[in-house]
Amino acid sequence: MSHSSALLEHAVDQLATLPGIGRRTAMRLALDLLRREPLEVNRFSEAIQRMRAEVRYCDTCCNISDEPVCAICRDPNRNASLICVVEDIRDVIAIENTRHYKGLYHVLGGVISPMDGVGPDDLNTAALLERVNAGGVEEVILALGATLEGDTTSFYLDRRMKEHGLLVTTIARGISVGGDLDQADELTLGRSITDRKPYEQSVKR
Amino acid sequence: MSHSSALLEHAVDQLATLPGIGRRTAMRLALDLLRREPLEVNRFSEAIQRMRAEVRYCDTCCNISDEPVCAICRDPNRNASLICVVEDIRDVIAIENTRHYKGLYHVLGGVISPMDGVGPDDLNTAALLERVNAGGVEEVILALGATLEGDTTSFYLDRRMKEHGLLVTTIARGISVGGDLDQADELTLGRSITDRKPYEQSVKR
Repeated sequence: MSHSSALLEHAVDQLATLPGIGRRTAMRLALDLLRREPLEVNRFSEAIQRMRAEVRYCDTCCNISDEPVCAICRDPNRNASLICVVEDIRDVIAIENTRHYKGLYHVLGGVISPMDGVGPDDLNTAALLERVNAGGVEEVILALGATLEGDTTSFYLDRRMKEHGLLVTTIARGISVGGDLDQADELTLGRSITDRKPYEQSVKR
Repeated sequence: MSHSSALLEHAVDQLATLPGIGRRTAMRLALDLLRREPLEVNRFSEAIQRMRAEVRYCDTCCNISDEPVCAICRDPNRNASLICVVEDIRDVIAIENTRHYKGLYHVLGGVISPMDGVGPDDLNTAALLERVNAGGVEEVILALGATLEGDTTSFYLDRRMKEHGLLVTTIARGISVGGDLDQADELTLGRSITDRKPYEQSVKR
């Protein structure tokens, strides 16, 4: 790319560090930014810089927050005896969007992955145990991904929580609502049969 | 997203202004940036800001350049009697990567599109006519996209160039090398038959 501009090339290099963005896409993004007003591009890059520099994490649940304690933990209408453990903030957003959950969260910031050198101490597990030790918590819902790493993490947390005599639950796995049986993977379909429940229960909701 | 951070939300909004990036992807990119070192994120946003603020355009061919005249226009080994007209800098990069072209370029910065209110005066057409008027140019290759807008622009430029008694050519359209006939679109296949040429010519290259 010596036939172009070192400044452009450098911007493309940086954009290509983003996950899922190859050099071709990065070039398209860079040329799009280049066509914009300079002020608009300043707004763009400052938004990213400020986010990284100023975003905080909730002292209680490790969710992303602009204040020391996040809006969910501060909400007196939420059930503080219920903690839903998730991998990252995207899971919080996904569950909040369902409007089905009124408890609190705990964001681990990852899952245990010996392959990547991530152990329990690299995650926000100590903060979770602290919350549980403080009392008032009755149930911990493990809502981690159904991967080897997610399962390992759930197994570890289940053992630690049980030490405190807590009810530990996991979210239900099964055929998605409106999903076709013949399009589900075998693992999910198998689990949905193992975890079947009385018909009356399923129609009541 | 009141359950999260205004700073994060703002960064996601900005990332979602990029072409082809929806809000879901923007959130993934923002969380990736959030996990990086602050210095690394500064490098990222500064690369974009500097590109927009400092990149120049070649005085001659309107290609992107860090200097007043770009490396291609400055290269004495290139054939200055040949100008290849392209839509944007990506086309220059694509053609340069073939290593098949040793002439100069002219970057229009778009194509004529009455629907979007883009006329010849909104493109770098005046600079092209200036170069042609200055003399020394023998052939102009129109390498614009085979869209309605590209064809309109080619038609317009052909008429203007012909006024100067120049040879105006267009790049060949046809089945791609190694491409299957049954997978080509009808327009391309039809054109490849209309534009057929003696067999000896095609094997010589």
